[in-house]
Amino acid sequence: MALSTLSVLPTLLVLAAASGADAAPGVKPRTMQQVLDASAPADWRRPDPAHTLYLDLPAGRVVIELAPIFAPHHVANIETLAHEHYFDGLAILRAQDNFVVQWGDPAAGEAGKEKSVGSAQRRLKAEFTVPWRAAFAWTPLPDGDVYAPEVGFSGGFPAARDRKTGQVWLTHCYGAVGVGRDNDADSGGGTELYVVIGHAPRHLDRNITVVGRVVQGMELLSALPRGTGALGFYEKDEQRIPITALRRAADVPEAERTPLELLRTDTPTFTALVEARRNRRDEWYKVPAGKIDLCNVPLPVRAPKP
Amino acid sequence: MALSTLSVLPTLLVLAAASGADAAPGVKPRTMQQVLDASAPADWRRPDPAHTLYLDLPAGRVVIELAPIFAPHHVANIETLAHEHYFDGLAILRAQDNFVVQWGDPAAGEAGKEKSVGSAQRRLKAEFTVPWRAAFAWTPLPDGDVYAPEVGFSGGFPAARDRKTGQVWLTHCYGAVGVGRDNDADSGGGTELYVVIGHAPRHLDRNITVVGRVVQGMELLSALPRGTGALGFYEKDEQRIPITALRRAADVPEAERTPLELLRTDTPTFTALVEARRNRRDEWYKVPAGKIDLCNVPLPVRAPKP
Repeated sequence: MALSTLSVLPTLLVLAAASGADAAPGVKPRTMQQVLDASAPADWRRPDPAHTLYLDLPAGRVVIELAPIFAPHHVANIETLAHEHYFDGLAILRAQDNFVVQWGDPAAGEAGKEKSVGSAQRRLKAEFTVPWRAAFAWTPLPDGDVYAPEVGFSGGFPAARDRKTGQVWLTHCYGAVGVGRDNDADSGGGTELYVVIGHAPRHLDRNITVVGRVVQGMELLSALPRGTGALGFYEKDEQRIPITALRRAADVPEAERTPLELLRTDTPTFTALVEARRNRRDEWYKVPAGKIDLCNVPLPVRAPKP
Repeated sequence: MALSTLSVLPTLLVLAAASGADAAPGVKPRTMQQVLDASAPADWRRPDPAHTLYLDLPAGRVVIELAPIFAPHHVANIETLAHEHYFDGLAILRAQDNFVVQWGDPAAGEAGKEKSVGSAQRRLKAEFTVPWRAAFAWTPLPDGDVYAPEVGFSGGFPAARDRKTGQVWLTHCYGAVGVGRDNDADSGGGTELYVVIGHAPRHLDRNITVVGRVVQGMELLSALPRGTGALGFYEKDEQRIPITALRRAADVPEAERTPLELLRTDTPTFTALVEARRNRRDEWYKVPAGKIDLCNVPLPVRAPKP
């Protein structure tokens, strides 16, 4: 069987233990696989269990890395909600094609029926952008952006910044996790979360608080049946997908955790990876783009070597 | 129940008969819904049944509009394949998350087992780009693009062009339909087709022949279970989704067709729609982007008024 395969690696990679094979360091140009094969242990990082969420669904686990530096109050509030089991037993309420999957309390807003938020807050002041500071460790992308003056990576997250306003923000790339809100800017708190499952809706940037991104298990969300109600809401109770549990990794016994390593975005290896993707060198490509869009940069994930 | 809804309309709209309601022509700025409510019958077009495909799956129908002006030989070849029932009984072979769904002959490449292409061709010369001519009726977008010197719409399709080379090409936005190929540029012919189901893989532009786009039924493809093999291929026969039939609308009895109207992209109404999406005016948005990415421009579809 020799299918035409569009031989392109997935954007969200889960690599088996890297092969450590025959890369030729110093020889350019390289493919992404060669860059990864030549990577050193220090090119990889393990996400902090205190800021990692496990969204456990009947079909499996979605792993979310939170970005406390970009939305400190929302992240802390979501971690409190998770620690106190707020989301356990709630449900995925919405799957809108080429847009978002969203979960929360089916009874939200119904007096006397909605679930208590415990010691967490129901509403917080918006964290749509935060002031730039050196701690953000910026890795710029060179090819411009339709929506923002400058885009790049910070702490492993795709982000944008504006030197004029001094603000930086997480961008709505595929897999971004944000905080649903009503019309009031300060009406979200983290009790309803959404994940981008389509073309990056970058017009949401700076309009809603982004708290992190999915690093494994996207297909458990992106392949859900789309809701047939307005905005992709499920119309019947039985269409909703129950949340088995949403926990901080730190609250899960070590043996039940999902060990992952993520490629750092502040290293020469990452810069080489970006370059490998700006100009694809495998035989399939006839016209290398010479450019890359922020949301097309792969952020490799692998299981740690045993 | 008052959920935080991220009150944003879907990018791929299927409108019920337009309300014709209370839009105030001439009063700006307007929302997209106001623009559509004020649209005239002449703002809409019906796709040509000779160049429309119905991909009928067990779960329903996917409607594809072909773009013969951009890929005349591939489109004609695919129409021959459809007319001669080549695809009927074949299968969806691949669903790779954030990338593509692809269908074709599970036995492709197996001597003596693969399906005959009848009077069609198995391989054609690549049509990655075509020479610009006035017939393309270009509606430019004003906000630039990471990948191409110029982007806009032509005949209802998102496209890019380069005045220096005089070439124009269809872009890989969500829903784009392209022709799978092997490493040789001229190795595709239309026996394997793919649809973009994730963030626009614009690096494929000018590397593969794009023949059209899905105008209805995307969710029948985008919500398919992802394949667990390399590149998202299904590993077992029983995981593949059988194609009931893939026919030209013109070959389907009138009573079994799916009547649709698409918003024209060469009218002041479309320009107003783009403007409404560049600067969202509904109450939910706090910081209108002021810009729009090619692949975020909605291309509204509606059922014709009875």
